[in-house]
Amino acid sequence: MSIGEEMLALAIAAKQASRHMAVASSATKDELLLKMAAALEERSAHIREANEKDLSAARENSMAAAMIDRLTLTPERIAGMAAGLREVVSLPDPVGQISGMWLRPNGIQVGRQRIPLGVIGIIYESRPNVTADAAGLCLKSGNAVILRGGSEAIHSNRAIGTILQQVLETMGLPPAALQVVTTSDREAVTELLQLDEHIDLIIPRGGEGLIRFVSNNSRIPVIKHYKGVCHTYVDAAADLQMAERICLNAKVQRPGVCNAMETLLIHRDVAATFLPQIVTVMRQSGVELRGCEEARTIVDDLIPATEEDWSAEYLELILAVRIVADFEQARQHIEAYSSLHTEVIVTNDYRISQQFLREINSSVVMVNASSRFSDGNQLGLGAEIGISTSKLHSFGPMGLEDLTTRKFIVFGDGQIRD
Amino acid sequence: MSIGEEMLALAIAAKQASRHMAVASSATKDELLLKMAAALEERSAHIREANEKDLSAARENSMAAAMIDRLTLTPERIAGMAAGLREVVSLPDPVGQISGMWLRPNGIQVGRQRIPLGVIGIIYESRPNVTADAAGLCLKSGNAVILRGGSEAIHSNRAIGTILQQVLETMGLPPAALQVVTTSDREAVTELLQLDEHIDLIIPRGGEGLIRFVSNNSRIPVIKHYKGVCHTYVDAAADLQMAERICLNAKVQRPGVCNAMETLLIHRDVAATFLPQIVTVMRQSGVELRGCEEARTIVDDLIPATEEDWSAEYLELILAVRIVADFEQARQHIEAYSSLHTEVIVTNDYRISQQFLREINSSVVMVNASSRFSDGNQLGLGAEIGISTSKLHSFGPMGLEDLTTRKFIVFGDGQIRD
Repeated sequence: MSIGEEMLALAIAAKQASRHMAVASSATKDELLLKMAAALEERSAHIREANEKDLSAARENSMAAAMIDRLTLTPERIAGMAAGLREVVSLPDPVGQISGMWLRPNGIQVGRQRIPLGVIGIIYESRPNVTADAAGLCLKSGNAVILRGGSEAIHSNRAIGTILQQVLETMGLPPAALQVVTTSDREAVTELLQLDEHIDLIIPRGGEGLIRFVSNNSRIPVIKHYKGVCHTYVDAAADLQMAERICLNAKVQRPGVCNAMETLLIHRDVAATFLPQIVTVMRQSGVELRGCEEARTIVDDLIPATEEDWSAEYLELILAVRIVADFEQARQHIEAYSSLHTEVIVTNDYRISQQFLREINSSVVMVNASSRFSDGNQLGLGAEIGISTSKLHSFGPMGLEDLTTRKFIVFGDGQIRD
Repeated sequence: MSIGEEMLALAIAAKQASRHMAVASSATKDELLLKMAAALEERSAHIREANEKDLSAARENSMAAAMIDRLTLTPERIAGMAAGLREVVSLPDPVGQISGMWLRPNGIQVGRQRIPLGVIGIIYESRPNVTADAAGLCLKSGNAVILRGGSEAIHSNRAIGTILQQVLETMGLPPAALQVVTTSDREAVTELLQLDEHIDLIIPRGGEGLIRFVSNNSRIPVIKHYKGVCHTYVDAAADLQMAERICLNAKVQRPGVCNAMETLLIHRDVAATFLPQIVTVMRQSGVELRGCEEARTIVDDLIPATEEDWSAEYLELILAVRIVADFEQARQHIEAYSSLHTEVIVTNDYRISQQFLREINSSVVMVNASSRFSDGNQLGLGAEIGISTSKLHSFGPMGLEDLTTRKFIVFGDGQIRD
């Protein structure tokens, strides 16, 4: 069987299995996830053995320490995977929910009901815990899932996948509802991305290179975000102590993630006070600051910011700072450089806060809070399957509901159309 | 300027304009549409002059009579376009609506608010009334729109587009919010479909050939449906008089549209009664019937149905009929041949009706009503911009709300993340 035939067979089996998952009750799905969590814990040693094979290959290939860390499964991390599955159990099941039902003049009742998307493909890189996390969310939302992790984690992913599949089998559910692609050939991904008749959605999780590859080669809709260039705008009417706290948290609490702040915009009227204040605390936290010309007239030892700095996603302790004349200039800056991820205003001016909320159309728009809250868990969606910075289907952090769609249901009593 | 450069300039202008439309109030947008309706009526003679140019070219090219009919703009049809715009005025504006707002344990309030998609591209064929209809829906939902009709309607579309643009200008709104592509070169479409940085959604309206072309060549998300193979299943517990009425309406009231019935499934227990009954009334309406083997043992002069009949979208007075042993066989038939458009069950059995609603995941699923109700207007969405039979973003008939997405809004009072 060629890789293409293998992927087609796998996708057809997934579609079949998805029909069973679509009608499984919430109780059945919750029992499934609880048993999966227990199975991962029981077979923790077995998973670590498989993981050790990946790790020794990684060491042989002189993989970078940070990559090896992400690849490593400790007993704690396996327990964390189990805990993640149990957390998904506690989330409400979106499938079957009816959002609105209305009566038409002719007496038919019309409603919209949530149903699973069908088959979800997850393409990811080294972290093997994604295997369990993504599977839990896809199965709870009534979908089948095809998981394709990085070749460097192949033994770990295969071990986790086999354990989870066995739980499906023992519950009388189709094991093809969860399939791990274990061929390391990259062609497997290319082939999967062509199967738009059988796979309903692709979610790539990893670096920009992976996401661009998937996006450029897929006939299947792809949920993606390339980067997070998050702005915080400190308005003239900001509480500057609050602004300091929010900016510091947004930049340094975890700089390597997409919801960390990359650019700070400061209203001219408060720049002389706030800029020296924030430079001091940022530098105490090891942040390198790059400023516009006007900022450098206030704090003269800032590194000059170049045009590239305004669209940079540093993902490290670097911050670009720009002084703006007014709200409108802040808005224009965000419009020009935003990645549509998350933007924050700090202000006590009611009118300006409302204007920011209305005029800034990034996927998450906040008043007086740290951009670090921009993830599914913090926003209250429960676990997050991904984040979308394109507007179709979902915009922003995605939870269980975003793995479903809505069909129309109609109750009549014999109506026909005139 | 090459066609590519021309389309890029047009798309960039549309994106700029979309930012103005996104913050226009409902009152402004409604006033805009009312003035557009009035302008179309006032300049009806001018539009018909332009239309006459298209019509004489069509006659010279020996265009088929049905095509010429679709291309023709009479005073009544122009009044119909104006009425369509006024109907959109009466629909609620989805932009700004907040669907749910919740409080997190740390005190931040999180909500999801509807915002426009941005720039919508409509690619359509001969009917010039689409120009006004689609523009009305896109503008009311706060989007900018790029309209690319068929080259055979180019003079008509240009005239309508110019009139509508002038109304934008007189209201101080950016005319680039509504642009008609008037080059007849097909390359214009190919170029537009590459501009995924500037255009947010493409909606093709026309035959399967157009839709496949757009879908296969677009880097921008495409909302599409290829065909409607709608099933009606007459269950053992059906009221057979009601079933007759619903089936007849679904097949003959307007056979040339996607929500007409193409396949009738009859439960074996009622076939001996119902099949002869429905064959009689269908034949009285000029319907040609094609039956499975079992059906032909009951009504022996049915044309034998072949495998192709089960997936045919006839769009004319032909009906495929199959006798099924039970609900499960009906479900399997629909699963195998459905286009995910609309399926109907006629039954008085509560349990079976619920099972049908649960297990059939087409975009519209009905109990005891004609499939002809499956359009945006009949279902209560108001005017329809299109229909989607793929599950991402929207599934089924699409109204104003489907031209928007949701962003997260967050209200804090200084919260930071631990």
